Formats: sequence, structure tokens, C-alpha cells
Amino acid sequence: MKHLLSTHDLSVDDIVGMLDVADHMVQVNARQLPKVPALRGRTIASVFFEDSTRTRLSFETAAKRLSADVMTFMASSSSLNKGESLRDTIETLSAMGIDALVIRHKSSGVPQQISQWTNASIINAGDGWHQHPTQALLDAYTVTREFGSPASLAGRSIAIVGDIKHSRVARSNIDVFTRLGATVILVAPSHLLPADVESWGVEVSGSIDEVVGRVDVLYMLRMQLERMESGNVGSLREYSERYALTQSRVDQMGVGSILMHPGPMNRGVEIMIDPSEFSGSRILQQVSYGVSVRMAVLFTLLGNGSMSVLGQGVEQ
Amino acid sequence: MKHLLSTHDLSVDDIVGMLDVADHMVQVNARQLPKVPALRGRTIASVFFEDSTRTRLSFETAAKRLSADVMTFMASSSSLNKGESLRDTIETLSAMGIDALVIRHKSSGVPQQISQWTNASIINAGDGWHQHPTQALLDAYTVTREFGSPASLAGRSIAIVGDIKHSRVARSNIDVFTRLGATVILVAPSHLLPADVESWGVEVSGSIDEVVGRVDVLYMLRMQLERMESGNVGSLREYSERYALTQSRVDQMGVGSILMHPGPMNRGVEIMIDPSEFSGSRILQQVSYGVSVRMAVLFTLLGNGSMSVLGQGVEQ
Amino acid sequence: MKHLLSTHDLSVDDIVGMLDVADHMVQVNARQLPKVPALRGRTIASVFFEDSTRTRLSFETAAKRLSADVMTFMASSSSLNKGESLRDTIETLSAMGIDALVIRHKSSGVPQQISQWTNASIINAGDGWHQHPTQALLDAYTVTREFGSPASLAGRSIAIVGDIKHSRVARSNIDVFTRLGATVILVAPSHLLPADVESWGVEVSGSIDEVVGRVDVLYMLRMQLERMESGNVGSLREYSERYALTQSRVDQMGVGSILMHPGPMNRGVEIMIDPSEFSGSRILQQVSYGVSVRMAVLFTLLGNGSMSVLGQGVEQ
Repeated sequence: MKHLLSTHDLSVDDIVGMLDVADHMVQVNARQLPKVPALRGRTIASVFFEDSTRTRLSFETAAKRLSADVMTFMASSSSLNKGESLRDTIETLSAMGIDALVIRHKSSGVPQQISQWTNASIINAGDGWHQHPTQALLDAYTVTREFGSPASLAGRSIAIVGDIKHSRVARSNIDVFTRLGATVILVAPSHLLPADVESWGVEVSGSIDEVVGRVDVLYMLRMQLERMESGNVGSLREYSERYALTQSRVDQMGVGSILMHPGPMNRGVEIMIDPSEFSGSRILQQVSYGVSVRMAVLFTLLGNGSMSVLGQGVEQ
Repeated sequence: MKHLLSTHDLSVDDIVGMLDVADHMVQVNARQLPKVPALRGRTIASVFFEDSTRTRLSFETAAKRLSADVMTFMASSSSLNKGESLRDTIETLSAMGIDALVIRHKSSGVPQQISQWTNASIINAGDGWHQHPTQALLDAYTVTREFGSPASLAGRSIAIVGDIKHSRVARSNIDVFTRLGATVILVAPSHLLPADVESWGVEVSGSIDEVVGRVDVLYMLRMQLERMESGNVGSLREYSERYALTQSRVDQMGVGSILMHPGPMNRGVEIMIDPSEFSGSRILQQVSYGVSVRMAVLFTLLGNGSMSVLGQGVEQ
Repeated sequence: MKHLLSTHDLSVDDIVGMLDVADHMVQVNARQLPKVPALRGRTIASVFFEDSTRTRLSFETAAKRLSADVMTFMASSSSLNKGESLRDTIETLSAMGIDALVIRHKSSGVPQQISQWTNASIINAGDGWHQHPTQALLDAYTVTREFGSPASLAGRSIAIVGDIKHSRVARSNIDVFTRLGATVILVAPSHLLPADVESWGVEVSGSIDEVVGRVDVLYMLRMQLERMESGNVGSLREYSERYALTQSRVDQMGVGSILMHPGPMNRGVEIMIDPSEFSGSRILQQVSYGVSVRMAVLFTLLGNGSMSVLGQGVEQ
């Protein structure tokens, strides 16, 4: 595996293998000294053309725990402002000897395009409405840890609630969850569903109240106010009344079912409760596993293939 | 000690102990290779909601000399712009496994509030008018090195000149200096003194000329033009005439007395001389000791308690 | 050698010696694990008062491959906004124990001025129209690698095309190329030539077509639209027609001659072809050698003088 551009590039075996590597990384992170020399001498650059401190810090923390060197490239302060082409920027970073570029861009397909211009590994950290593959992997890891193993997803049901149409998280997660055997139910008003949803292999419901009591996972999407075309939301208050997670809806959730959210949360829009007071919330667990899963991705793309280095601590 | 939120949380023994650890760090920094593996595998994030390159670089230099990994989080480029709550931001950083957050915020009490939301150690790097505890510790270290030992502050007099009312540096330093036995004299026009100054255990003077010849330390505050409510300064020129440090006032300083300033200096406002030409200035010494004192704070909060690691160099 | 402020401070022996150290760094960078512990424990700060992600990342990558600690100081987020003087900023960074400051500034002479205020090593990463010495060294390295050795430049001809008048790259490169024995031909409209060009020891031509077939190196400058006084360019379209590199001009280049550009390129202004499809382009090679040359500069200024450390890998 050279790049991680889309979940569609991963076979089920690839996904299961990556979750297994993530298991090892969770063990590394549980140590007193959570750092291994696995990627010493490798250089990883965060190249964010769209702001996301959360995702950037998760990748950079992951890289540093593997002892890689990390460079941060924020597009707003780059040569792109001087009219340099995107291709020239990428070729320049690659010529400096950077081994992997973690790319966030507002346009779908940019990481794929970039991968054709460079020998560096490209990791898609979110492109437009298209894909966010490490989010899907960390969410799959969270669910499989909850229910036992990747195989345990077979027959489980996962409701994804919110603005499916504009969500790369939804597209990535639906692909991974369904291929691991889960049933996915999309919950959204019709104007926030994609036009071709019938071909997605999912169920659709217009009512969160109808599904909340019968699913194993309730996955609330972030309402991406900044990404929607105006007029699409209708009344935000009306949306919240019909689709937000309230205490009464939490009360209907089944025993052993869990709540997930990719963050950052819009409190008062899609989420009305305080998740830190709900024992079924795995929202912070997602963040925590996110570092381990991104370590697994970086190690898989850039490591020498031997897991034995994970047994080594860094010297103290 | 888990957090460093306020000088008020420190006993005199805590303060003296911290200054003793700082002594060891000064020795580390005097080595050819000023780096120790004391915090290898620990991750420290600078979380600055208010700009301060100076303080941030001091903490980050300190962290790197202890071999910690450092993450920089600038609030202006964060999820907070997308409406995420401060609490969610902090819980997210904490869930990533970050061990300590160094917080600068324009509102008093925010670091204290944050410390209740996370298992990470919180270090207050300045909150509103309230506290700046590492500044007080580095200033105390500078004074005790000058006069011999923490005990040597007993009976010394320290004049703090400027906008006391809006100054977290003044509040922190007054607390530490007085508890180490020094006499503190505040020098300011009445409208730049806090209303309850009578209860602070300090002397007050309206005239720098009256105190400059009789104190051991002349501590000039930065006039924080950006923090004052308009109209408070009166004529800035009049302020400078009455309170700024001029050459003639330097000439009145006693033999062996020293000049301090927390930086950055407003030349032409509170300081009219060039301190680099005055042998009694300890302003750059404060900066230098600042790195050592912040190393001591980070090591005390995050280290394993054994000083022996400071004897180890990093391998070369 | 304490600072690198200008190519004029370097003797020919200094230049040849630096290119020889760069040769060792190219070998380090060709290793599976391109990192050496040569500057462990040293701290290097990028201090950029003018934006240049490309140059900053090149220096920071170089520093990290030598195992130095790196601090980034962007002027826009600095105390300079609060009115602190440049000298105070520099003295503060220096007091923190930073060993080298890599300075980019829009005004000529600032790095030279700064070098008088601090014990840290100062590296000029570009000051106004004045100098960009590491660019000249990396370009000299690129040319000498192409033709065999520094001595091989004797008798070679190098055309530099574009806005000579406002170009620090031109000034630095002319100095180094001519002292290594090459003939430099400047190609520009008269209003983009400096007034005193007769004293520069170069040839001048008003026609790229006249020189393109007879030089060993065609060095296209970036048209720095943001740096020119308005009215100087005349019609940009007319400039491009007369001076830009087109396919027909590439076709006239001699066998074995090469194309160089300091980047970032203004495609459609000074360069009309896609250099990645031209086998004579060394533009990305310049970027790659840039990291090695900057490693050589940092090692020469801050290392302990022994090359044996370059033979050591970092432990894995």
C-alpha cells in the first residue's frame, strides 16, 4: 500500500489488517512511555488547504509517537498565495525528501490528483464531500472494539443521522461499515440525502425516533453549516427539533448501544445533551483511537513492514 | 503537584523547591549539549487563545530541552471558529493523549476552569489580569540568584512601577515576593491601582522618584495599551514623564540594585533608556532564566520525580 | 565562520569547502535513514518577517535531519505587533539560548544588523533586493554537480533572465558564479537592470533569443510582481513575449545545457513550458540539493568541526 486516498481502495482484508495494526498501537499508547522509533528518519508533512486543527494535531501526534519528523504547511501562508500552482507546490515538497503528505482540501479528488505528481505517500485527511478514510477506519476500530472484533459487525445496525449529502464522513463510513457486514440506516430529511442514495446499499429513514431504539450505533454527523449551500437547511430550528439528539431520544436507545460523533460537535444544533454525562457515548474514545489508527496508517505506509520495532521503547 | 494555575496554590516550600529544581536546569543549560531525556515520550501542547510568541517559545524551548514532543495550537486557527465549545476542544486534546496543556487566555480563570475538564496537567501561561505564575517564579529566581538564596529576599525591597490594576504579572509577583519576605512598593497613579490595594500587604507610592533610590529591585511593568479601557491612561505623555525610567532616575538607583521588566518593553513609554547599556539591568537574564524555570515546572509536573535523569545527556 | 550574511563574506575557498560539505550531506540524504545526530541539542529558529513557506521548510527539514530542535517564529504573530523593537525581539530569542536564527526580511541589511545584536549565528534567508546566499550556494552546487566540480565552472556561460534589478537571487548568484570562473550574461529590458550594471563584471543582452543557444545554463528569475514598483513592468504581456521561456526557445538550447529557476515559478509569466517534461530542467534538483546545502551551512556554523558524526546514523 503506497497511498491512502479512499476507503474504496481498501479490500476488507486491508481494513481488517489495518485495525489489527491499530490494536498494537493502542498497546503502545498505553505504555508509560508511548513512543516507538518505528519511523525515525522519516519526514511527514501536514498540508492543510482547509483548516482542521483537530485532524492535523491527531496526525502530528501520531507521527511524533512513531518518532517521525513533522513539518506543518498551512496553505494560507504558502507560495500558493504568490500564484504558484498546486502541482509545483507538491513537487517542491516532494523534492525536499518529504516521505508522506497528509492532505486536507475543500475539493473532492485533490489528494488523488496529487498522488500522480509525487513519489511521496499521500494520505487523504478529507477532501470535499468525497472521502475521509482515516475517520472511517477509526470509527470502524471504535465499533469493533466495542462489539469484539471486525467479524462482530455482521448483523449490527448503525444509524447515521444528519446531512448525508454533504458529508465525506458519511460516504467513507458507509463504505467501511457495510463491507464489514453491518446494516447502515441513513436518517435525514430528503433534501440532505444524495440523489443516488438508492444505489448505496443502505436503508433510509426520515425519522430518528423510528430508528433510535433499534440500532447498535447511533452516529450523529456534524451539521456543516459552513459547507452547505444556503437554503438547504430550511429552518435550522426545525431541523434540530426533528433530528437532534435529545435526552428523550437517548432514553430510547437500547441497552449496550453507543453514541458516536466525528467532532467538532455543534452543541444546540445536532446534539442537545452533554455526551460526557452519557455512559454510552464513545465520542472521546473515537478521538483517542484516532491517534492509534493514524499511527497504524503511517506505519503501514512508511514502515519497513516488521512489527518488531513496536516492541522497542525509545531509550530514556 | 498536578497543575500550575496560580501562585496562591504554591506554599513557600513549593516555591523554594521549584527554584531549587530551576538551579539544576540552569546547569543543564550551561552544558555544551543542553538537552536531557527527562520527558521523552511526553507530549506538551501550547494552547494560546491570546498571542504571545515570547512566552510560547520559552515554554516550547523548555519542553524540547527536556526531550518532550511539542504541539502548537493557536486558537485563531481552531475548531473554536466553527463553534466548538472550549470544553470540547480541551477534552479532544486530552483524549489524544496530550500530557500537559500550556494555556494563555484573555479571560481570568479559564486555566482553572479547564483543569476541571481534563486529566492533563494545566499550566497557566497568563489569564487576563489574574495570574502568570511562571513569570513570578522566573522573577523570583532572578532575584534570589542576584541576592544569594530565597532566604536572602527577607528584608529586601522591590518597587513595581506601572499599571498595577490591569497586570497579572503584578498580582503574581506581589504574592511570591511578599511571601519570600520582601517588601513590595507599588508605584502608580491612583487610577492604575486596584480598588482593594489596602488589603494586598504592600506599600504604595505615587512617585517613582521617591522610591528609586531606596529599593533593591526596580521592576518596571509593561504599559499594556491593548488591555486598558480607553481613558484610563490620561495623557500617555504625562504618564511617561512621571513614571517612565529615565537616565536621571537610573542615576539615582542604589549600588547593587537591579532593573527588571517582564517584556516586551514599550520603549518610549515606560522605558526611556537602553537597558543593554545599563549594567544593573537583568531584563535579558530574566528571559534566560525563564527557560530554566519553565523546564523546572514541566519536569516537576510531568517527570518521574527522580533528578538523576538530569545527569544524563542525550546521546550524540 | 560564525554567520552567513552575504556571499561577499565567503572566499572562493569557503565556497568550495561548503560545496564539499554539501556533497557529504547529499550522501546522508541518500541513505535509507537520512538523519544524523550532528546538531543534537542545538536549537535553530526560523525568524521570517516575510512569508516564504518554501525556504522555511527547506531550512527546517535540513535542521531536523541534523537532529537539531527547531522553533518557528512568524513575525505576523509576534511581539513586534505590540510595538516591541526588532532589537528587543532578537535579544530575547538569543537570551532563550537559541543557537542560530534563520532570518528572512523585506529590507536589505537587516540580517547584518541583527548579527551585531546577538551571539547566535545569523543566516540570511533573503533580505530585500540584497542577498540570498544559500540560494547562490545551492545553485552553485547544482551547476558544479552538473558539470563535474567547482573548477569545471571555468569558461562556462550562465544567462540570468528577468528582473535583475529587484532580485537578491541575481545579486548573490552573479557573485558566486563569476568568482567560480563562469561568464554571466544578464538578459533583461533596460528598466529591469540596475543602474550600475557596468561595474558588475557581467555581460548584458537585451535578447533572450540571442543568448539561449550559446549558454550552458539558462537561469530564469521569478518575476516578483509583488516587489516591483508599479509601472516598471510595462506591459506584462509584452515582457512575456520578449523574455519568457517558450518551447521554441527551449528548442534552441544547446545539447547538455540546463534550465534553472529559484521558484516559485510564475507559469504564464516567465515560463510557458512545463519543466517536468523537459529533460534539461534542474528546477526540482535545485530544491532537493537545497536541503543538503542548508544542512552543510548549519553544520558548518554550528557543528563541532568533525565530519565523523556524519558517518553515524541515528539509532533505530
